This record gives sequence, C-alpha cells and structure tokens, in this order.
Amino acid sequence: MRIAVFGTGSVGRALSGRLAGLGHKVMMGTRDVAATSVRKEKDMYGGPSFSEWYSSNKEINLGTFADAAVYGDIILNATNGNGAVAVLSQAGNGINGKTLIDITNPLDYSQGMPPVIIPSLMNTNSLGEEIQRTFPLVKVVKALNTMWNGLMINPEMLANGDHHVFICGNDEDAKNQTKAMLREFGWKDTSILDLGDITASRGIELILPLWLRLMMAFGNGAFNFKIQKMGQ
Amino acid sequence: MRIAVFGTGSVGRALSGRLAGLGHKVMMGTRDVAATSVRKEKDMYGGPSFSEWYSSNKEINLGTFADAAVYGDIILNATNGNGAVAVLSQAGNGINGKTLIDITNPLDYSQGMPPVIIPSLMNTNSLGEEIQRTFPLVKVVKALNTMWNGLMINPEMLANGDHHVFICGNDEDAKNQTKAMLREFGWKDTSILDLGDITASRGIELILPLWLRLMMAFGNGAFNFKIQKMGQ
Repeated sequence: MRIAVFGTGSVGRALSGRLAGLGHKVMMGTRDVAATSVRKEKDMYGGPSFSEWYSSNKEINLGTFADAAVYGDIILNATNGNGAVAVLSQAGNGINGKTLIDITNPLDYSQGMPPVIIPSLMNTNSLGEEIQRTFPLVKVVKALNTMWNGLMINPEMLANGDHHVFICGNDEDAKNQTKAMLREFGWKDTSILDLGDITASRGIELILPLWLRLMMAFGNGAFNFKIQKMGQ
Repeated sequence: MRIAVFGTGSVGRALSGRLAGLGHKVMMGTRDVAATSVRKEKDMYGGPSFSEWYSSNKEINLGTFADAAVYGDIILNATNGNGAVAVLSQAGNGINGKTLIDITNPLDYSQGMPPVIIPSLMNTNSLGEEIQRTFPLVKVVKALNTMWNGLMINPEMLANGDHHVFICGNDEDAKNQTKAMLREFGWKDTSILDLGDITASRGIELILPLWLRLMMAFGNGAFNFKIQKMGQ
C-alpha cells in the first residue's frame, strides 16, 4: 500500500519507519521539503534531527503535503493539533475520498507545559470533528492519539498488548482500513475499541490532560489506558 | 469515625450505606430535610426513591448540609457538580479544617445526554480546584469521580480490584485519610494513583466524557480505567 504521513516530528517518524518496515511505500508530507530535509535541530525529546533520521531511512519519500496527499492510498495525520486544519488545506484535493487517520490533539503548547486544550476544539466540538466538518469529502478516523508513539506502532511491548486504542469515525470502510493497519502494528482485535461516529473524538481527545499528568508523575510515556470490563 | 455525606442521590446512598456497613456513623446532608425524607420519585436510573431507600437504612442520619458538616470528622461531597460550590456555602463553617473528599464532576445535564462540561470549570481550572480556592480552610481531595458508584465502594467486584482510582489534593494528611477510606472499601495500594496537588483534578475530571461514551457503547457502567504500566 502507498501511505502518506503528514508531519515529520516524532510521531510521523515512528509511523513512517514502522510502515516502511512492514513493506509499505511511504511519503511523508511537510510544508517546505528543502527546509525540512536539512533540518538540524534535535526533536523536543532530544532525539535525532530530521536530517539525521532521514539519512538513515532513505526508503521513505519526502514531499509537500499536496504531493503526499496525491501519493497515498491512505493518509495519516501526525501534525501539530493547532495547525492541523491549515495543513490539510495546503494538501489540496488529493485528500478527497481517502481515509485520513487523525492522530492529532487540540493542544496549545505556546504557554509552556502542561499545554492547554484549544477552547474552540473541546467539549461540544473536537479536532476530529472540526477536520471532518471542514473536509467533508475526507473519511476521518480518530485513532492512536492517546498514547506514546512507541506504543502506537508496537503495542505488544507493554503487557503483551493488553491495553486499548480508541477509534471513531463516520465511515465504516475507513474504520475497517484503520483496524487493518492497527493489526499490522500488532494490535489485537480485543484491544481496539470502536466508539462509534466522529463525535466520540470529544471524549477521546479530552483524556490527554490526564495522560500528560500521568507522564509527569511516572517520568516516561511507556504506559497506556486499559478499559477493565466485567467478565473479561 | 463520624462521616458526613453531602448529597442523597445514587452516589451519596452507595457511599453512606457502605460506610455504615463498615461500622462508621454517617449523616447525609441535604438542602431540606423534611422534603428529602419524603421524596417519592425514582432515581435517574429507576432505582428506589429516597424515602424507600431511607426507610431500610435507618442507622443513617439525615440532616442539613450544616448539620452534617458539624457532625462529620470527614466529609464526602457527592452533590451535583453544577451546584457543588453553592451547597458547600450552605454548609457553613463546619467544613473548615476538615478533609473533604470531592467526588463531583463539572457536568451540566440541562441540555440532555450526553452532558456538557461547564466551560469555566475545565482546561485551566477544574471543580476540585474551584472548591479548594473558594474554601481555602477545607482540605480538598479529589477522588472516585471517574467510575460507577458500585465500583467506588466495592472495587473487587471488577477484575479482582485490578483497576485504578485517581486522587489528588494539596494536603498530605487529607490524602492519607482518603487512602485509608479507600482501603476500607477494598482498594489495594497499587490501585490508588496519587497524582499530586489539586490541579491534577483538571485531567481527572476531563475523562468523564470518555467514560460516558464508553458507558453508552457498553450499555452499563461496570467498567473502569486501568493504567497499564511497563514492568507490572
């Protein structure tokens, strides 16, 4: 499969590397290809710069958001939440009719840690819904936004995969495509909780403040939510 | 111990009945004792009316919020979130210097299901913090607000107690009192996650929208969050 990954930060890199390793063809999308490809700053967690990472992942393509949108049979959105709608506008018509797995969170880091939630994208709205509303021809599926990227792509590294990924969206085929990709990453069917239509993004996105608080308490992100149910 | 429980709904009743069963002396607090004691409406889940319930729990006392505040060595706040600050104002000086375990959520059900979060009590604020700020002489501990009341008082009925209760607050002694009560209910130490000061209420309260969505998906509230951690 040909897959577009929007965003070149730690989440975009983790997803792109894993998908390429699984044998998919990947194009990462960015605003300015020339600038991104020579970027030398360490990432926010002190990891390698994009240019370092990219030089050891030569099988992955890099293009504009529009290039990647046209390239991908399916699109993963791993951009910053506060710019996600603008990025998708730059991607143009190539996104139409395709499944877009949206991993973003409506967080504003401009005031420091912990980030605040963007008020217009919470409670009676969410970033998942805002994207679906703004781009009605795209099949938006919210998924994977509630955990550290290491677990997104390798859930079995924690408790043999016994924890949950929440997904939601309006299109059943798009959700089935998403579930198929999650299974490739190692997610068991029993660990994928489909919560219905895209309005479920409201709840799924609002657990980020607790996730961040837990990360601060534990000192790392190597944990995840499990929903413990009666009789299981 | 003498314990005050503010609120006569399903949460207040579950806590009061369990605490009395454990041998504590309990006084429930309500706005209008005469009106509450003859209340005949079924509760919101179709359970018994307060007067029915109360007639079979005669060992439990009923008083005004102010009566109960003076009576209790410790106070449990199980009122509706949108009236919680007003109720505590009615309780008067009896609450000062005491531990108040706050189980409320800042939810507004006036527009139907699912409820919305009260905008002034989220993101950069929370109901736990609002109560602590409004009543600085009270030792507020947020706890138990993230689950069905059946699990609050009997966690072992689900997965042998292998799921979590989140607590936070500014006063260590008050948190220790809260943990002691949680242990009496059946919570193991490893299932009590202390997230620090009262500002952690922000994250703890904001998982309610996901909880409500899960309840709608499962058709019941007999589930809870577990934080799955590496190496456990």
